[in-house]
Amino acid sequence: MKARIITIGDEILIGQIVDTNSAWLATELHQLGIAIERIVSIADTREAIHDALNAVDDSIALVILTGGLGPTKDDITKAALGDWFNSGWRTDAMVLERVAEHFAIRGLPMPEVNRGQAEVPDNCEVLFNAHGSAPGMWFEKNGSVFISMPGVPFEMKSIFTDHAIPRIRTRIQKLPIIHRTIMTQGIGESSLMEIIGDWEENLRNSGLKLAYLPSVGSVRLRVSGFGNDEPALQRQIDQEVGNVLPLISKYAFGFDDEALESVIGKLLKTQGKTLSTAESCTGGYISHMLTSIPGSSAYFNGGAVTYSNQAKMEVLGVDEASLETYGAVSETVAIQMAEGARRIFHTDFAIATTGIAGPDGGTEEKPVGTVWIGISGPSGSFAQRFRMGDHRERNIRKSAMQGLQMVRKEILKEKGISLLEALH
Amino acid sequence: MKARIITIGDEILIGQIVDTNSAWLATELHQLGIAIERIVSIADTREAIHDALNAVDDSIALVILTGGLGPTKDDITKAALGDWFNSGWRTDAMVLERVAEHFAIRGLPMPEVNRGQAEVPDNCEVLFNAHGSAPGMWFEKNGSVFISMPGVPFEMKSIFTDHAIPRIRTRIQKLPIIHRTIMTQGIGESSLMEIIGDWEENLRNSGLKLAYLPSVGSVRLRVSGFGNDEPALQRQIDQEVGNVLPLISKYAFGFDDEALESVIGKLLKTQGKTLSTAESCTGGYISHMLTSIPGSSAYFNGGAVTYSNQAKMEVLGVDEASLETYGAVSETVAIQMAEGARRIFHTDFAIATTGIAGPDGGTEEKPVGTVWIGISGPSGSFAQRFRMGDHRERNIRKSAMQGLQMVRKEILKEKGISLLEALH
Repeated sequence: MKARIITIGDEILIGQIVDTNSAWLATELHQLGIAIERIVSIADTREAIHDALNAVDDSIALVILTGGLGPTKDDITKAALGDWFNSGWRTDAMVLERVAEHFAIRGLPMPEVNRGQAEVPDNCEVLFNAHGSAPGMWFEKNGSVFISMPGVPFEMKSIFTDHAIPRIRTRIQKLPIIHRTIMTQGIGESSLMEIIGDWEENLRNSGLKLAYLPSVGSVRLRVSGFGNDEPALQRQIDQEVGNVLPLISKYAFGFDDEALESVIGKLLKTQGKTLSTAESCTGGYISHMLTSIPGSSAYFNGGAVTYSNQAKMEVLGVDEASLETYGAVSETVAIQMAEGARRIFHTDFAIATTGIAGPDGGTEEKPVGTVWIGISGPSGSFAQRFRMGDHRERNIRKSAMQGLQMVRKEILKEKGISLLEALH
Repeated sequence: MKARIITIGDEILIGQIVDTNSAWLATELHQLGIAIERIVSIADTREAIHDALNAVDDSIALVILTGGLGPTKDDITKAALGDWFNSGWRTDAMVLERVAEHFAIRGLPMPEVNRGQAEVPDNCEVLFNAHGSAPGMWFEKNGSVFISMPGVPFEMKSIFTDHAIPRIRTRIQKLPIIHRTIMTQGIGESSLMEIIGDWEENLRNSGLKLAYLPSVGSVRLRVSGFGNDEPALQRQIDQEVGNVLPLISKYAFGFDDEALESVIGKLLKTQGKTLSTAESCTGGYISHMLTSIPGSSAYFNGGAVTYSNQAKMEVLGVDEASLETYGAVSETVAIQMAEGARRIFHTDFAIATTGIAGPDGGTEEKPVGTVWIGISGPSGSFAQRFRMGDHRERNIRKSAMQGLQMVRKEILKEKGISLLEALH
């Protein structure tokens, strides 16, 4: 099955936004075993939309359109689709209710312009948008399926996941691709390649595929297999993953796109333990990551972002002499910060960060990117120094990932679970 | 002048990487006044490349191709271009030197196979790649220009900036597009549309364009003008922006993609004031936003993320009776949190958030999305309640933006600056 993605919106053509929708859709379709032959970004004009639809030939079984951002752009897309599919128009009751509700919840009157959002082409099936007023639409023409969705990423993702995928699945025979992704932290792509080179060669010879998927502070290793005997393929992949884990257990923390903060959350829940943070250079990013997980209040009591030395002393109890002798970016202060967080938030474990995120503030002795990460737990406290590089945003992200990985290992060690066991 | 971008590479079509090259190129071209009519991502096969080139018609004056990642992909692109342009082949001395140097630096002899990297079509002009071995290439055919570059972002950017832009500039007259973007917070796209509808109609009649660019917690309003008399165009846009600001000064906080946290940072610096945070439902996200700005340590002393009631009491001094009587998500607690942050971090202003981010934890009285935001400053403290909706990630972002906007207004009020004056 071949597919094409058409993204509609001037904001992509002038570089105002990066088209992340297409990458997300491509990943989803790839996992369904559907090959994308082309991604096209066009202007939000009727002419451009019609040109793009006219260019779809018989070989394309599935066309996915994502609209511009916002009701005005959605309107153009909807009107252009209605024309192209020779549609009549009807008011969809569910969509109208959704639009009215949107304003009612906020105690606002519904602007007249929004009523039009419930008008849909009469020859499409509506794919309900639980998070916004612009509906998804499913058209069929000459044996091909056309799915139109709004461009707002979380609305698009929810429509696609909840309503499009189940319908697409009924049209494809089976899932011929199986994936298993290993999540790693603390090692770059090329070093990883050196460690697992022999295993990788063997894997490729056995017909499986491997992809290195790096992002800031993390590399995902994706093993993929194609074939009809799904159970056999699954066994083969499980075995290969089992073979590589002992080589990379220092770095691997989970599977299948699970975030490190989610892995830690589950671990803390299972162990009945709690965590807190004391952040200087990461500025609250670690606690943001931890609290982005629903239910994190069960194990995350809180954190202190102590940017000033005064806050480090008064809030966390770091002693003035240590700040003067060693400086804020030091092993001693990182340890005292972690211990302070554990004490004031009454938690079993704590992560602390203190460093120079940049771009300014570096010295010869402590260049930009120098970060001390401290961990405190029931068995004691320690800190480790890192050189993260010279890019502020990446420093923050890499330091946060490193701190989370360190506390994960400490929790496991405390419980006597080996790094390899933790992955089973 | 109309342009098309063609990105070549399977990794985009399977969602392995997000196509950031196109957004970067689009921004650069847009600033040169060149309109992109389409961005196409295709597979790295000769057939797909030829199809894409055949689809370029006379109206497209400039075609930019970026290759896949890695030497093998670059080779396919180069060979396919050579075919399509009916090229002979020559060895480029500079490229050969560059390749040889690559091996010399590493103390390795150059394998004969790498000599092929210096082979280029004889009817292209080489655009030198200072950071890699795959050269950029400039072709001309039927009055259109075709620029091919490798896909590695930093190689592509350096070739484009240093070698392509100067050549493109000689072909275009001047910069015919001028933009001014107004940043707003606290109002949705459709409500904004109702407020400024008359102004918008007038704007369009005068030949200017308006775009609504919404993202979570914020809508950008972009006014664009096209024309040859740049100073006159600039005056016209300034005047129209001046006309609309009084209508939306409650929501507008800045211009031209400046982030709210950056606007607040400048304001605090100018006033010599300091800020702290006390976050419950936003979990550290506000302090992360504030500290993502380089130099924020000058005005941001720190923040407390108090997820547990105990932390609210012990760290911020919220009183137990208030927590029992009103609950953690209440006006009283929001105010006490803000006052606690101001006190422990010794700052002039503080923002506090307490709410139910979801997906769980809502009640009939306080449904998911209920958020109290507290502000404390030299003139006193207050809190306001919001209903943010039912999506955790968006709740966090919207609450953070709202808190930042509220503290911005409080800082201005303290200084006797009106919301309209603040925008001049």
